[in-house]
Amino acid sequence: MSFVHRETVRFAHVDAAGIVFYPRFFEMLNAAVEDWFAVLGRDFRALHLEDRIGTPTVRLDTEFLAPAMLGDLLDIALVPLRVGRSSCNYRFTFTGGGMVRLKGQGVLVCMDLDAKAARPWPEAIAGSLRAALPSDLDDGVA
Amino acid sequence: MSFVHRETVRFAHVDAAGIVFYPRFFEMLNAAVEDWFAVLGRDFRALHLEDRIGTPTVRLDTEFLAPAMLGDLLDIALVPLRVGRSSCNYRFTFTGGGMVRLKGQGVLVCMDLDAKAARPWPEAIAGSLRAALPSDLDDGVA
Amino acid sequence: MSFVHRETVRFAHVDAAGIVFYPRFFEMLNAAVEDWFAVLGRDFRALHLEDRIGTPTVRLDTEFLAPAMLGDLLDIALVPLRVGRSSCNYRFTFTGGGMVRLKGQGVLVCMDLDAKAARPWPEAIAGSLRAALPSDLDDGVA
Amino acid sequence: MSFVHRETVRFAHVDAAGIVFYPRFFEMLNAAVEDWFAVLGRDFRALHLEDRIGTPTVRLDTEFLAPAMLGDLLDIALVPLRVGRSSCNYRFTFTGGGMVRLKGQGVLVCMDLDAKAARPWPEAIAGSLRAALPSDLDDGVA
Repeated sequence: MSFVHRETVRFAHVDAAGIVFYPRFFEMLNAAVEDWFAVLGRDFRALHLEDRIGTPTVRLDTEFLAPAMLGDLLDIALVPLRVGRSSCNYRFTFTGGGMVRLKGQGVLVCMDLDAKAARPWPEAIAGSLRAALPSDLDDGVA
Repeated sequence: MSFVHRETVRFAHVDAAGIVFYPRFFEMLNAAVEDWFAVLGRDFRALHLEDRIGTPTVRLDTEFLAPAMLGDLLDIALVPLRVGRSSCNYRFTFTGGGMVRLKGQGVLVCMDLDAKAARPWPEAIAGSLRAALPSDLDDGVA
Repeated sequence: MSFVHRETVRFAHVDAAGIVFYPRFFEMLNAAVEDWFAVLGRDFRALHLEDRIGTPTVRLDTEFLAPAMLGDLLDIALVPLRVGRSSCNYRFTFTGGGMVRLKGQGVLVCMDLDAKAARPWPEAIAGSLRAALPSDLDDGVA
Repeated sequence: MSFVHRETVRFAHVDAAGIVFYPRFFEMLNAAVEDWFAVLGRDFRALHLEDRIGTPTVRLDTEFLAPAMLGDLLDIALVPLRVGRSSCNYRFTFTGGGMVRLKGQGVLVCMDLDAKAARPWPEAIAGSLRAALPSDLDDGVA
């Protein structure tokens, strides 16, 4: 089951060619991940500031299929592919006007910000992530 | 009559001290101005790409009164103070949790992107801007 | 005596009109302030992470006089105008190709990041700031 | 033969955890690619504004191996792996303090900005890219 976050392409996102400058897609992706975690059970503010948990990205593979322009509405769909003890592989797809603009996979790690080391996902988040695994993935292995 | 645009403080906005890095407030301000123009009668995409009109900022004075943190909801209110032939002075106020975080004034200029020169506001926009002038400003002069 | 920091206008800085998107000027300004503090006696890393001192901007007034384009070299000159116990008014000027592109004044405050309150400048920084006051400013009052 | 571009980690690059927010690494990567093209024979300004040629990224795979902090100096090394008629696969490595912080591969495409379609590399750039192919890559195929 995927989570969908909507972004509008802003003036701040586009480059001299009038299309989204690709690092801005990753700012949008991060905003989508933030809202995803709120739905998974813990928002980024509580996670970072109260629980002292971060979720750094350790791997990110992206195919840019079509440009996006100022004013485009982009639906960013996120779906977990594999939920480990302290990591999560997920797939992302940016769709606008019925066309996939970019897609890829990322790996997030659950990190103790004070110890600066990986730590297990909080049980509530792990449970929500596993519940969101697509049903055609037997055990969450992509 | 002020226009209000809402932004969430994102991970992308905050600095090492956990508060909004001030250039990010201006990215938010620009997003607010974009949505304001759509309401005034012409969205930024049509304005820039079809009409070849830009609205550069030529003056911006800001007081930062209180920090904003990850997860804060900010209401950005915009109100015109003076509408000239090819310029507009406006006031902005960022409020979050009932507290003003920053406020200031800016001056936008209507620019012909091809001629790279100031030009009069399109009549529809000028009319909308004038209609939004606060009633206590007799003739739009702040 | 002014401090000068040089920046190249990057693809990341420009907008759909091919000129610098104004919030990016403030990212450049902040980089200039960072390098200035290193010269004043304490770099931003040591200041923030070791001394737990931040230098938030509480006021910023800017006039944008001419646009800057991809590839332009900009010299950002900083000069203190008034050095208070825990604040510093300074003037900034962005010059490129012999032409002033933007200029303005800002006010920095010295903040204790843990107490989240203003604190006096460290003596070494206060001394360097005062030594950099222009000689035509009798007592540092602009 | 790799091209190396140096960046300082700025306040604008780091997040609430005090480490580089990963989209900022891609802004740095783009700055490195800009300077690389200048050395290859055509700077980004001339390429985009005079030749009307863009170099969008169509694929980007990254492994984030170690964080980078405020004040770190990062050497970004770029080396072509395969030079096609209108594309270029390249490898990037960010090293700081003797440690690789991130590495990956990207694919750039040579695009006619007006026709909005792929076009062959200008011969001078193609020649420079081929000359920079590592000698252990027989024909430029990674």
